[in-house]
Order: sequence, then structure tokens, then C-alpha cells
Amino acid sequence: MEFQGHVLAEAVTTLPRELYVSDEIFEAERERVFRTRWLAVGRTAEIPATGDSLTGNPAGESVLFVRGEDREIRAFYNFCRHRGTRLCDDSRGRFPRGITCPYHAWTYTLDGSLRSAPNMSDTPGFDRKDYPLLRAASGAWEGFLFTRLASKGASLEQALSPLLGRFADWKLSELEPVRRVEYEVRANWKLLFQNFSECDHCPPVHPALARLSHWKSGANDLREGPILGGYMRIDREGGSLTSSGRSCGAPLGDLAREDRGRVYYYSIFPSLFLTVQPDFAMATRIDPVAPDATRVTSEWLFAPGTLESAGYDPEDGISLWDATNREDWHVCELAQRGVASRAYVPGPYATRESLLAAFDREYLSSLGDVAAAPPSVAL
Amino acid sequence: MEFQGHVLAEAVTTLPRELYVSDEIFEAERERVFRTRWLAVGRTAEIPATGDSLTGNPAGESVLFVRGEDREIRAFYNFCRHRGTRLCDDSRGRFPRGITCPYHAWTYTLDGSLRSAPNMSDTPGFDRKDYPLLRAASGAWEGFLFTRLASKGASLEQALSPLLGRFADWKLSELEPVRRVEYEVRANWKLLFQNFSECDHCPPVHPALARLSHWKSGANDLREGPILGGYMRIDREGGSLTSSGRSCGAPLGDLAREDRGRVYYYSIFPSLFLTVQPDFAMATRIDPVAPDATRVTSEWLFAPGTLESAGYDPEDGISLWDATNREDWHVCELAQRGVASRAYVPGPYATRESLLAAFDREYLSSLGDVAAAPPSVAL
Amino acid sequence: MEFQGHVLAEAVTTLPRELYVSDEIFEAERERVFRTRWLAVGRTAEIPATGDSLTGNPAGESVLFVRGEDREIRAFYNFCRHRGTRLCDDSRGRFPRGITCPYHAWTYTLDGSLRSAPNMSDTPGFDRKDYPLLRAASGAWEGFLFTRLASKGASLEQALSPLLGRFADWKLSELEPVRRVEYEVRANWKLLFQNFSECDHCPPVHPALARLSHWKSGANDLREGPILGGYMRIDREGGSLTSSGRSCGAPLGDLAREDRGRVYYYSIFPSLFLTVQPDFAMATRIDPVAPDATRVTSEWLFAPGTLESAGYDPEDGISLWDATNREDWHVCELAQRGVASRAYVPGPYATRESLLAAFDREYLSSLGDVAAAPPSVAL
Repeated sequence: MEFQGHVLAEAVTTLPRELYVSDEIFEAERERVFRTRWLAVGRTAEIPATGDSLTGNPAGESVLFVRGEDREIRAFYNFCRHRGTRLCDDSRGRFPRGITCPYHAWTYTLDGSLRSAPNMSDTPGFDRKDYPLLRAASGAWEGFLFTRLASKGASLEQALSPLLGRFADWKLSELEPVRRVEYEVRANWKLLFQNFSECDHCPPVHPALARLSHWKSGANDLREGPILGGYMRIDREGGSLTSSGRSCGAPLGDLAREDRGRVYYYSIFPSLFLTVQPDFAMATRIDPVAPDATRVTSEWLFAPGTLESAGYDPEDGISLWDATNREDWHVCELAQRGVASRAYVPGPYATRESLLAAFDREYLSSLGDVAAAPPSVAL
Repeated sequence: MEFQGHVLAEAVTTLPRELYVSDEIFEAERERVFRTRWLAVGRTAEIPATGDSLTGNPAGESVLFVRGEDREIRAFYNFCRHRGTRLCDDSRGRFPRGITCPYHAWTYTLDGSLRSAPNMSDTPGFDRKDYPLLRAASGAWEGFLFTRLASKGASLEQALSPLLGRFADWKLSELEPVRRVEYEVRANWKLLFQNFSECDHCPPVHPALARLSHWKSGANDLREGPILGGYMRIDREGGSLTSSGRSCGAPLGDLAREDRGRVYYYSIFPSLFLTVQPDFAMATRIDPVAPDATRVTSEWLFAPGTLESAGYDPEDGISLWDATNREDWHVCELAQRGVASRAYVPGPYATRESLLAAFDREYLSSLGDVAAAPPSVAL
Repeated sequence: MEFQGHVLAEAVTTLPRELYVSDEIFEAERERVFRTRWLAVGRTAEIPATGDSLTGNPAGESVLFVRGEDREIRAFYNFCRHRGTRLCDDSRGRFPRGITCPYHAWTYTLDGSLRSAPNMSDTPGFDRKDYPLLRAASGAWEGFLFTRLASKGASLEQALSPLLGRFADWKLSELEPVRRVEYEVRANWKLLFQNFSECDHCPPVHPALARLSHWKSGANDLREGPILGGYMRIDREGGSLTSSGRSCGAPLGDLAREDRGRVYYYSIFPSLFLTVQPDFAMATRIDPVAPDATRVTSEWLFAPGTLESAGYDPEDGISLWDATNREDWHVCELAQRGVASRAYVPGPYATRESLLAAFDREYLSSLGDVAAAPPSVAL
């Protein structure tokens, strides 16, 4: 875990316009990046009891995450094997006795087996064993639920290896959600990753935040690859990044001295931002909707018992970060409108934008050769 | 007219995903299916007087149906021969003295001839005979108005031959409309035909309806081709399929004993569902708007004089069927969301889904070879 | 300046359907017509002071028009050279001390030079001289501000040569805006030019206007090329085309006797209509949004001091022309709906539609060979 300042080995430019506006590129990204990588979809604590389910939307698909009788979480494509009907149309579900399709009552056990198909009883050749729910891969890290649509690929542990154990002291898996906010941002998802990856914009865009944490403070330890980031300083001793500047939640854990004065920022390609402070964490999920539109979900997580304690005020931290988020989405939207110009050509990255250059490299590598992209909507 | 139970000759699966989501397929359907077949557009009784007109929207076109001085109904493309201006922008029109274009006052007689073109009087070479309104084919069956955009093809009688005379006792042509409801359904039109063609879904989806008519009752007499259907039983003797279970309209005609205990269901490819009960009929028109969107218009038709009679309550039947319709559109929308998954593969039809398999055969036959589909929007 | 009646050398038809509905044609028009021609974007009087800016939207681009310290107006593409962020998101701006990007505070002087880029100070190889704002061409005629996106082409004076000096007596450059109305018209932009170019539609569409100015009056002096038009008569002596029929503004200038009884109508391909009366002028800008959608902005301009004078009522003229505009947009929308029919074929122009045929010639000439149009959205 070696933190160091920015290094930009050579002059690097921003990405070309086409990658921010093209429908074909968007489809290629969905195919080659979002369907092949582990994507964050929520928290395992959202489905605590057997039969609980959560509906995720990885890469435009609808996937149910179901807590089974063996307490395992399984990911199923959200349609019935009979005629393809969506099984659950809500963000959460309760299926204590199995998942029943609302159309013809085909019923599945919590491990996906087809238990009964009432209308098929006199259909020759039909065997329930042939029609289980279809699976996607799922896994968890520090209480965050991930899924991967592609049937083959690296394990979740491999994908997140630079972060394994990193946040043990902060006990992320035990944190409880206090607020969730969903934003619709009229900007390409890559602009959001690029925005998250530098703080040169903090003085003009985030005056409140900049007063709490000097924009040139900190250093990065993950500077290449799918996980990027490091820490910045909390200027006030014993304080935090909140509207008041004071700590607003019970300490997440027994933190080392230096960690008590730091906020950690990590982006996890291609779907998650983590902001970890001594008193709370903010997890922001990124879900591309169109070349110029992204759905963003931020959730604020606090130590168990914070809400019940009189001395803490989670709104203090949530308000500062919700405002900061909106300031970020605004400049991202201005960036989307500008790069859509036919006259736009890539510009120069600053040295302190080294993580943006690293994100771009990871992105281009995962996208592959777009000249070989499959034609759109072949019959 | 031989009614029999379901037969599924061999294992048959549902249609593939592409046919429910692809814009190219939708355009091919519009071209090869909807422009070539007779489509239901309304009731002849909507245009009773000379000069009355009704605007239909067959296959995305706008067509005027005009009652002429000879009492014939003619179908004209709804634009002026001068510069293409739409002649009538409402669903109904009154043109007792001819059809006048609102732009430059070109005026057509009710048989489509150009009677006057005031601004062309000093234009050399102009001859009004060269610019009549363009015709589409039109015809009527049992008071239902049909049109066909293609200039050549089978007559309406040939297209509807299995139904000719079938409903003579119900006097469909004399029925009067009591209510019309338009629905916007976020589902592919084929899902609606498939939904209409089976009642295995009735117990879970239509509990009220299922109490009035056993879901396994009845038999089909039209089991292959463009017209499919048969009857189901009305369980209560002397009752009907209404919210109360009681008959709600004057008998449509002097019905045979067995018909007084039956509801007949027929789908007429590709634009009409008929539900005929002893006390009223429901006609449902299907108008595809997009791969995942269909405009649906249901009209409830009662025997003349029902509204004026104190003893009848048409709302009793309309309410039950409007609720049943909405229950159907809901599961069709869940089906659309599910089949849009990239992971969806066709599933197995039950034996009692034999009419769905027949619909699919008629559909695929009318669609033809999609690999030869014209490229979209060629210049 | 030779005015004469209409001449239609040979039978001419309207344009084919494809040109009104095709997305590919729309893109080709944007590329070959709107990006290469001078387009009207506003009035120079909107940006009177040094540092004032106006945001124009020529051909779907966002361009800032900035009054510099030398009083010159310059057109800059509205994005920062760093990462492409939009500089100004409003229709007007004030930049007395330079244009500062809201993202990382890069600051440009009013002539477009990059004055400071604070975050680049330790980036090796970075030279501010390499990153000025990108320019578009701009110019003014009679107080109207024009821009051209293509870097090469005829000068504004060459493009407007038939109109140079024509309106000297009306002192158009000194006129002040009293009202601006924006309309969203669901019709192709070409239909609006064709509508503007004839008055055969005036009796059925504009009964109020037709009472003030006989629809067959007047003559045209510009009958071929990008600028088309002439005059029509104001029937009442000393009157004008207003709701009351009376003059409603101070005379625009010391007009010749015949001009005091005339309204002049000129269309300037492809973005502007001028309607010049003795008491006010109306400038209407045309901005295509989609094949079937056009944004239209009309502005009414009066002699300086008219508003302060008790004897004048600008609303009298504005109301008549706003109503007339809406009548025109309505028939244009009916035309769009009609020509979208697959059955539509071109119809005959009347002799008095000679300017429409001339517009079509100019349009087809500027569009070029569409079979050679670049494929849409090439990677």
C-alpha cells in the first residue's frame, strides 16, 4: 500500500468525442464491458431473510438476488421459463414459499428449480428438470452484492484483489444504510468516473468541500488497473467531511491514528465509487442508461447504532455529500454538452489527472477493438 | 363447425426474443403483414349519414372512411393531392358538401374526384382528373369496417370465410356501441394475441372471471389459420360474464339453447378480438405502435334499446371486462419485460396453448423470410 | 430590382416524401446545408457591452458570440479546450473579465486566447498558446448576427448580395426588439419555407390577414437563388398589417411613397424570414430539430422610441402576426402528417407557387447527390 503523488509519464489526452455520443459504442460497452465484469447491485443486508429478494439491473438486464433456504444468495434472470414473463416487477420481493410466476403460476424453489408447472401436466415430453431459472454469477465483498452476467471470468476476489482486507478496520460489512438517493444524470458514465478521479475541480465546483479537505492533499496507492484511488486529508483534527465539519456518526471501527484524519476514495471499474470516512461511508453505483444518460444511486452507510445515539446527526454528512454529488453531476452534464460538439477534439490531461488517464487505459483495454464491433441489431 | 379439445401435435416452443424487440422486424411486420391484410378500423354505424367520415390508422397510415352520396363507404388516404396536406385531423368528420383541404381549398367530391382546385386555374397543363384522392380497399362484415392498404389481395369475404354467417343469430350488425375504451399497452402486439388465445392464466390472473366461467370449459372449432377460437361456458344458467354474474343486456337475438350458455372468443389475424356473449359483444382492435407498444381499443356493443330499458345495466358487463382487460395488459407487459432479456430463450407451449402455436404459425407464414427483409429506411 | 408576376417555366412538382421524413436526409442536410451556409442567430444589439455574450445554436452546435474589448463580435465553440466542458449554459452571458470555465477555472480573454489554466502549472509540455477557444465565422447585416460553421466559404456580403442596401430606408440596424416568441412546430423546416413563399393559402388560412392585403397583390423581384421574395400591398392607405388595420409603430424611416403601402417578404436560405412593414419588421429564424420538428423564433422590431410614444400600440401588430404564424404552423403540421404517408407522391405546383419551386431548386442544389451521402454514424 504505497501512496505517492501523481505521475503522468507522457502527455496524455482526453478520450475522443465518439466514445461519449455514439449508440454503437454504447452497445459495444454494454456487450464487452458491463456484461463481462463484476457489477455492484446493492447490499446483502437488503435481503436478510430466507425468501427475500432484491431486483438488480446490471447492464440493462433484470436479475433477482434471492436468499435461499441455505442462506446463500443466488442470482436468477428475472423471467419465467414458460413464456418469458417477468417474475418480480418490484425492487424488493418476499418469496418465503418459492417464486411463483404471476401469469400461469409456475413455481420455483429458492435455488431456482422448477417445483410445479400446473398447466403442463398433460403435455407429453415436458420435464420440469429442463426448466430451472437461469443463473447469473453473484458474490459479496464487505457487504456489497456483486453480479456478473458472463458465465465465465475471474472470480470476485480476483477482480477486487487490491481491496481485499483493506477496509477491515472500518467493518464495512456491518454498516447500516441510513439514506439512499437516486440521481438521473444527463452525462456519459465515463465522465462521472473521470470527475470522481481528481480534485482539481474542488475549489471552483465544491467550495464547501474544499474548505474541509485541501484539494491538493493526500496521495494515491492504486494508480493503474480497474481499482483506482487513495486518500485525501480531513483538515480539521477530529472533524469530518460534513456540512458542519464535525464528525456525524459513531466511528466505523477502531481506526489507526492516520486513518482518523483521512477520507478514502476508490473507484471500482465499471460500476462503483467508494468514499470512506471515519464516521460513515458513501457507496455510489453507476448504471449507464444511454450515451448521454446515467442512473446513479448513492447510499450512506453508518455504524450500527448511530441512528439510535443522541449525539450523532447523519444528516450532517448526508447533506454535504448530496450537495457535492449534485455539483459534480452538474459539471458532468456541462461536459457532456460540450464534448458532443462536432468541433471538440481531445484536450490535455494535467499531471494531477493521472487517475483519469489510468481509467481511460482500463476502459480502452476492456472495450477492445471497436472496428471489430458487431453491427448493431443484426437480424 | 366442429368443436374439439386442444391438440398439440408435437413439442412446440414460443417465438424467439428478436421478434418481440427488433425495430427491423417491426418494420417488416408493418410492410408484410399489416399493409397486406384486412384490418378492423371501426363500425360502419359510426358514419351513418352521407358526408360522415371516420379516420382510421391502419398500419400507421391515416385513412378516411367516407359515406358517399350513393351510401357506399370509400376509403381514401388522408392527404390532398396538391402538396400532401392532411385533409381531416380529427377522428370524425362531416363533409356534406365535399372534402375541402384546409390549406388551399382543393375540394373533392365524396367519391374522391377533385371538384375544384382554385389556385390552379392559370397553371398550364393542369387537369383535375389527374388528381383524385388515392383509394384504399374497404369492406364491412357484421357492421365492422375493414380496410386493406395493398391494392391486390383476397376479398374481405375470403379473408373472413370461416366466420361468414356464424353470428347471424346474434345480429352483430345491428348492435349499438355503449362504451369505448382505449388502452396504451407496453407490450408487443403478438403477446396480446397469445394472451387472448388461452385461459390457463385465468385462475391466477382473472379470479373474478374464473368464478363465472371455468377455465377448462369449452372447445375450439377454428384451430388453424388466421381466425382462431371457439367457446367457453357461462357457468351460471341464465347468467353472463359480468361483475354481478347476471345478464346485463337485452338478448342479442333469438339464440339456440346451447349458445345462451356460451361466450364465444375469436381472434381475427392480425387486428381484432371478438368476445360474444348472449347479452353483449366486445370488439377489441389491436394497433401496433412499436415493438414494445400497442394501442388497444375495446368497444362494448349491445342490442338496440338496451340503454333505454330499465331492467338492464350495461356497466355490469363493461366493468367486468374492462377489469379483465387491464389484468391481461398487465401480464402482457410483464411478458414484454421478461422476453426482452438477452438470456431469454423460447420455452415450451402447453397442450392447452395449441391456439398460440397456431397463431405463431400464421404469423411466421405471413411474415415470410426475414433474412430477405428490405434494409431499413433505404434512401 | 425588377418586380414581376409569377412564371413557372414548366410543370414542376413538389419534393418527394423521403426528404421530409428520413433521418439520413436530415443528417445530410445538417452536414451539407446548415454547416456550410450563413445562419441567422440573433441581433447584434443583444450583446451591446464588452463582455456580453449570446449563445446561438446553429446546426445543432452551441456557439458563443462575444463582444470583445475591441468592440468586435467573435464566435467561439462553446466548450473549454481542457476536457470539453460547456462554458456557458445560458442564452446570455456576462464575461467582463474573461470567460472562465466552471469546471477547472481555465480562463479565456474575450478574443479567445487562453489566459490561465491553473491546474496545468506543473504539467510538462503544456503551452497555453496551443489551446485557444475554437472559432466559427460570424458577421452582421442590418443588425442581424450571422454565423457559418464551415471554415471556408463565401463571405456574408456575397451570400446576402441581393439584399445589400435594399433596406437602407427602413434603418433595420437601428430597430429595437419589442417581443420574441419561440414556437415548436411539428413539421419539417422545408415546409415552413414553402409556406412562407406563397399567399394562395391566405384566404382559407389567414382570413384576418387576407382582409388587409389582397392575396394576389404584389410581385417578386428575387425569384431564383438563396434569397427569394418581393412585396405585397397594404390595402388600406396609411394602414398596416395589424389586428386593427391601423399603423402601430413609428415609421421605420423616411420611406418612398410606394414603400409606405407595401409589406416586403424575403426568405434567406436556409434560416431566416424577413417581413418588413412601414411600422415594424418581423424576423423569423428557422432551426431544424428533426425531420418532423423545427424550432422557430419570431422577433418583432420597432423604430427606437416607439414604446415610449403614447400614440403607438405594438401589440396591435404583434398580435396579428403571432396569430398568423400559428395559423401557418398549423397547416405546416397538417402537411407534415400528410406527406409522411407511404402513399404520398409529389403533386403539382401552381404557377403562383413559382417561389416554392425556386426554393426547392436551391435546396436540392445545396444538398447535392444524396446517394453519395456518408453512412450514418460511422465509427
